Amino acid sequence: MMKLGLFIEGGGHHMAAWRHPGVASNGRIRIESFMDAAQMAERAKFDMVFTADTNASFGADDVFYWTHSSAASRLEPLTMLGALSAVTKHIGLVATMSTTYAEPFSVARFFASLDQISHGRAGWNLVTSLTDAEAKNFNKEAHAAHADRYVRAREFAQVVLGLWDTWEDDAMVYDKAAGVYLDPDKLHFLNHKGAHFSVRGPLMVQRSSQGHPVVVQAGGSEDGRQLAAETAEVIFTVQQDIDAAREFSADVKGRAAKLGRPPEAIKILPGVMPVVGKTRAEAEAKYEELQDLIQPQIGVRQLSSYYGFDLAAFPIDGPVPEPRETNGEQARVKMISELARRENLTIRGLYKRIIGQRAHRVLKGTASDIADALEEWFVGGACDGFNVLPPTFPRDLNDFCEGVVPELQRRGLFRKEYEGKTLRENLGLPYPVNRHAAARDRKGTV
Amino acid sequence: MMKLGLFIEGGGHHMAAWRHPGVASNGRIRIESFMDAAQMAERAKFDMVFTADTNASFGADDVFYWTHSSAASRLEPLTMLGALSAVTKHIGLVATMSTTYAEPFSVARFFASLDQISHGRAGWNLVTSLTDAEAKNFNKEAHAAHADRYVRAREFAQVVLGLWDTWEDDAMVYDKAAGVYLDPDKLHFLNHKGAHFSVRGPLMVQRSSQGHPVVVQAGGSEDGRQLAAETAEVIFTVQQDIDAAREFSADVKGRAAKLGRPPEAIKILPGVMPVVGKTRAEAEAKYEELQDLIQPQIGVRQLSSYYGFDLAAFPIDGPVPEPRETNGEQARVKMISELARRENLTIRGLYKRIIGQRAHRVLKGTASDIADALEEWFVGGACDGFNVLPPTFPRDLNDFCEGVVPELQRRGLFRKEYEGKTLRENLGLPYPVNRHAAARDRKGTV
Repeated sequence: MMKLGLFIEGGGHHMAAWRHPGVASNGRIRIESFMDAAQMAERAKFDMVFTADTNASFGADDVFYWTHSSAASRLEPLTMLGALSAVTKHIGLVATMSTTYAEPFSVARFFASLDQISHGRAGWNLVTSLTDAEAKNFNKEAHAAHADRYVRAREFAQVVLGLWDTWEDDAMVYDKAAGVYLDPDKLHFLNHKGAHFSVRGPLMVQRSSQGHPVVVQAGGSEDGRQLAAETAEVIFTVQQDIDAAREFSADVKGRAAKLGRPPEAIKILPGVMPVVGKTRAEAEAKYEELQDLIQPQIGVRQLSSYYGFDLAAFPIDGPVPEPRETNGEQARVKMISELARRENLTIRGLYKRIIGQRAHRVLKGTASDIADALEEWFVGGACDGFNVLPPTFPRDLNDFCEGVVPELQRRGLFRKEYEGKTLRENLGLPYPVNRHAAARDRKGTV
Repeated sequence: MMKLGLFIEGGGHHMAAWRHPGVASNGRIRIESFMDAAQMAERAKFDMVFTADTNASFGADDVFYWTHSSAASRLEPLTMLGALSAVTKHIGLVATMSTTYAEPFSVARFFASLDQISHGRAGWNLVTSLTDAEAKNFNKEAHAAHADRYVRAREFAQVVLGLWDTWEDDAMVYDKAAGVYLDPDKLHFLNHKGAHFSVRGPLMVQRSSQGHPVVVQAGGSEDGRQLAAETAEVIFTVQQDIDAAREFSADVKGRAAKLGRPPEAIKILPGVMPVVGKTRAEAEAKYEELQDLIQPQIGVRQLSSYYGFDLAAFPIDGPVPEPRETNGEQARVKMISELARRENLTIRGLYKRIIGQRAHRVLKGTASDIADALEEWFVGGACDGFNVLPPTFPRDLNDFCEGVVPELQRRGLFRKEYEGKTLRENLGLPYPVNRHAAARDRKGTV
């Protein structure tokens, strides 16, 4: 069965969504917008909602960008997902939290607590922070080099996973008469001492019904793929081309196999932006209406942020310059510049081609067309499902849930009811065996 | 009008609550227990619910303590309050977050986001971390000295308050047709550079309907009183004696007055643990039932944690040793040791006197007796209201809401309906004028 995530975003994922007449301009800050989206996705049996994060307003040194885009104010993911946990029952709740400016003890606690509150529906998207604007909010002048960020991220993940194992599944006793609250043999210190972190533990939150939160990643660079192969259970990825997506999937799952992880332990979900129409023409018209709302200066600026240098210095209707060595999001820059070369795009052409949809694949057409496109990739071994980015909320999410989902169900590609009670069960991921319980079992059988 | 906070705690505040037959042993980890309590308090028109926090399981190096008390596993406050925001409409939501192991940019974001999600009901309890067990979860061997923690805390508060002012009240424009999302003249960099923090800003969350979250503090030491006078809007305090409470209130409000802050800008709420009976004898019996559930070794250990050295080395039925210089919670140790001297208590007598209630004042009696006790302190100028710590949930909260609250209302001491829409309005606190707007207004009138 195909897995479906909903990338929630109050107003919508299209860059100009907030200008659309059907969208609440303040959607990014209205919890009710997110609640409505999560409940709609749950009725459609999505596996999870996902919310991204960053540690600075996009383009924090770009007053023009602030003024003319909807980026500057947004809800913080943990508090948001805490609220969503109370108005949903089945759908998974996944948030980004960066390893660059947080402490692993705190991150382990936040997500373990969300996992308790949601009764086993939490997931953590492990990322590294990308911009100098973020560094400047955390006592630094510039962000760390790509390789260094990944060294820290790898150790960070080890500590978080270690803390989640400091409690064994059956550590709680709750014997009121004897006054015994827990079994001390099933609660463990971590005693981690590494290059970046020294963390004793134990965690302050017991194991949840899914063992621990699902680990999600999105990095596509060499370092990112390797870290994902080691620790990720879900991978969000930007893919425009089925062959490139197949290569990515085979590469990551191949790396994981070498570490003893079976292919079903990792679910790869490329992002797609669906624009559903009753006819193809209606879908095209819906899309063009949004594209026309992109302000050119915003398009060039957003594109520049991917490239890491200012494209406004080049003619907007001239060719796209070659990318330079960047300390940012490498996989995405590579994908974008290859697209520009392949389709011989101008700067204006490139931003219209990718900015609206944040570089993800746009699927325009009838519900049946879109189901075809999803089926082709899924059945063709390019992925395990999709992360869905509606260009506007609530309209485009509603169109997907009422049109595309029933079509996928009819074809036997997507569930009609939730299979399990936890995010992990619904995703078909293995239950994580606690390392201390495993060690005792091994000892016991000697 | 008296202000009332509910200190929420899944199972209850009495040390042995989890052993009581009427209490869910796993209450500390069940979000439903907290939801029920918050909703019950909201029906009774409490100003706010408050949840405490720490960054290590209490007594993290004490396996015996873990085993026999309910301290080791608990929900994390932000995720919990996120969930509570979705099931309540009026009551304030206040959480502790330490300044010692977090970054001010993150803390400012967390609480600003909670303030948006709850439509102006958030409060931040600013504390410093107290134990080596916490330090060891954050790359350190021992916690910082008391004075150093307060230097950091003061700068931390400056940064958080500064970030909350980076957005003026009316910064959002939302002009779809013109493509103008916000007014760049009303969004500001912070550019803070200090001894501990360097933070550029702006914050990523716009102003809420109460301006910014209410600032809460609980420190009673010299450093704590001064910081509270500078920045606190609500103060939780441990007070056993009406004269000491009057002195504390006069001292803090006197310090604040020197800084230009009027007395009504600070609400002082001592903690009280109410045990309500239909008769005084019933209240006594309820309390004794709980006291008898305290395990002696736990009592001595908890007392030792306040004193900062192990009291098990002294005879349990002998006199309490004098306190030593401590790097921990100074105000509480002083209060406890004075109580022991005044009442000539043994170690056992002292822990039974204070451990069950975490050193707060226990009020036992009929609803009318308890209303008398609250009225005496409130009318007598010892405080602005109370932080209520029910010994068990839900029974003792219910008894307070159904017995004591109506009695206070009858006497005209407590509201019958919420006066405002935000926590700040209900507490009667002044709206915080944005510093940038104020500067422009001053400039404009020259």
